[in-house]
Amino acid sequence: MQPLTSLPTRTDIEATHLAIQPLIHRTPVLTCTAINEMARAELFFKCENFQKVGAFKMRGASNAAVRLDESDRKKGLATHSSGNHAQAVALSAKLLGVPAYIVMPENAPAAKRAATEGYGARITSCENTLAARESTLQQVVAETGATFIHPYNDYDVIAGQATCAKELLEDVEGLDILIAPVGGGGLMSGTTLSARYFAPGVKAFGAEPEAVDDAYRSLKHGQLLSNTSIDTIADGLRTNLGEKTFDILQRELDDIFLVSEAEILEAMRLIWTRMKIIIEPSCAVPLAAILKQPDVFRGQRVGVILTGGNVDLDKLPF
Amino acid sequence: MQPLTSLPTRTDIEATHLAIQPLIHRTPVLTCTAINEMARAELFFKCENFQKVGAFKMRGASNAAVRLDESDRKKGLATHSSGNHAQAVALSAKLLGVPAYIVMPENAPAAKRAATEGYGARITSCENTLAARESTLQQVVAETGATFIHPYNDYDVIAGQATCAKELLEDVEGLDILIAPVGGGGLMSGTTLSARYFAPGVKAFGAEPEAVDDAYRSLKHGQLLSNTSIDTIADGLRTNLGEKTFDILQRELDDIFLVSEAEILEAMRLIWTRMKIIIEPSCAVPLAAILKQPDVFRGQRVGVILTGGNVDLDKLPF
Repeated sequence: MQPLTSLPTRTDIEATHLAIQPLIHRTPVLTCTAINEMARAELFFKCENFQKVGAFKMRGASNAAVRLDESDRKKGLATHSSGNHAQAVALSAKLLGVPAYIVMPENAPAAKRAATEGYGARITSCENTLAARESTLQQVVAETGATFIHPYNDYDVIAGQATCAKELLEDVEGLDILIAPVGGGGLMSGTTLSARYFAPGVKAFGAEPEAVDDAYRSLKHGQLLSNTSIDTIADGLRTNLGEKTFDILQRELDDIFLVSEAEILEAMRLIWTRMKIIIEPSCAVPLAAILKQPDVFRGQRVGVILTGGNVDLDKLPF
Repeated sequence: MQPLTSLPTRTDIEATHLAIQPLIHRTPVLTCTAINEMARAELFFKCENFQKVGAFKMRGASNAAVRLDESDRKKGLATHSSGNHAQAVALSAKLLGVPAYIVMPENAPAAKRAATEGYGARITSCENTLAARESTLQQVVAETGATFIHPYNDYDVIAGQATCAKELLEDVEGLDILIAPVGGGGLMSGTTLSARYFAPGVKAFGAEPEAVDDAYRSLKHGQLLSNTSIDTIADGLRTNLGEKTFDILQRELDDIFLVSEAEILEAMRLIWTRMKIIIEPSCAVPLAAILKQPDVFRGQRVGVILTGGNVDLDKLPF
């Protein structure tokens, strides 16, 4: 195996799934009668909140790591992130016995920092600007020879995230629709590819907060646009699409729906209280879209990807 | 079938399990590597937070309901409760197509009241004293002919709760220990009976908050004693043992451990953050005991009953 340099094929995703199997959980699919009744649809929730590090990010990061040749891998993995991707890179490195170098803004929550350090990563602090993150990362990479793993704009990462929808399609027969939240677009891109390759009749929909609607606007206007604010509780979705993910979504995504902050919070509360599972606000965005668009989803069998469960219990939105 | 009038036998519990199967979920058993490492034991969590109505109470209430003869059942089911038992009686009645009459203190949380009404129960409010609850219930029973289902001091309820440990013993081989929280003792009694009948070598332990240690003191002194306060976050465990449950636990329980409020909160936080599932504070009491008693649990395969997941998101202890 080697790093992917072009759009992942069906064979690439199958090989990825085999390669990362020792590093990930095959997460369960849960259903909830009460939510089905509200949505008048059959929803199948793929629980990546139960994934290692508590989020789907483990799939993409571990694929990028296993595809490195041994001499590169030994020098280590690097990224800049204060979130789930940092933990995924750190754990992938730990499981493969190589170093991880994570650049984190100095105001990153102590809990996230501690979790990443808990996986044995070496953390370098920097100012909380994109420029500082990138220059600090470049310096770390230059000093260590570690390989930078981008959180989403990377074919290895996209192929890794694609294995989530692949499992869901294997575990639930007769799905009509797959739906996932859109942040940087890595998960959504992988989801559209798995739908195309493994279940060609299944539609792939995205869901995005109104407050950070860069993907919605980019797709409607046919050019890569940026968010003008980051003011959403769905903190995993504040990033903009990258060139690779935008290109895939332009060709493969069937539609994308926007939801308000109140709708996200209401959907999050529903999943917490009815399903008794802990999900991040970002995960609630697809259910919010389903409840908002009854004409699209009514009577359909819908695979919903719940992306992660890492929340700060001391700062809950309830 | 008919109501049980003496200690449930092995055959009674087996018949109960068959009879209530259409009315309950067979809940999953989850494991967590991180918590196993902390406990240096193999823990198998039986997730009754995913049970119908969000708690194991559905098992006992539904058994009491299905064992009534048809003429009695038609007159309805009654209880006084503001918690999970009320919802379990209400849903059992709904599923069996008979009325439910629930006496609730007027200060019961609006959410609990709404949930119980959502199952179609008729609610009668009363003052928040045990005397008012009991006299109001007597009146409701006299007027309607409904049958009172006690939340724990009832052999049908105990046999129903016993099916939880029965499933856990069927689903996990080679357990050394079962542990459950002790409130009124219905679940704990059923758990000891299932251990005795279905896995005679398996020890059954109880766990109780220090603040409401009536079961601990009753068992140590050999007489039924009451709680002197109800000052615990484990709000499902404030009740005292009944005569039937005390009698069973005196003969069958291998030991009982006490834990502090801080230990309960810490164990609850661990389950929320590491397992990404929502449990009530009462559910955290057994894990708190396991972490507090490493000499007892180290190296053992332990079945832990997570009793329920109904929490008020607006009043979390974090």
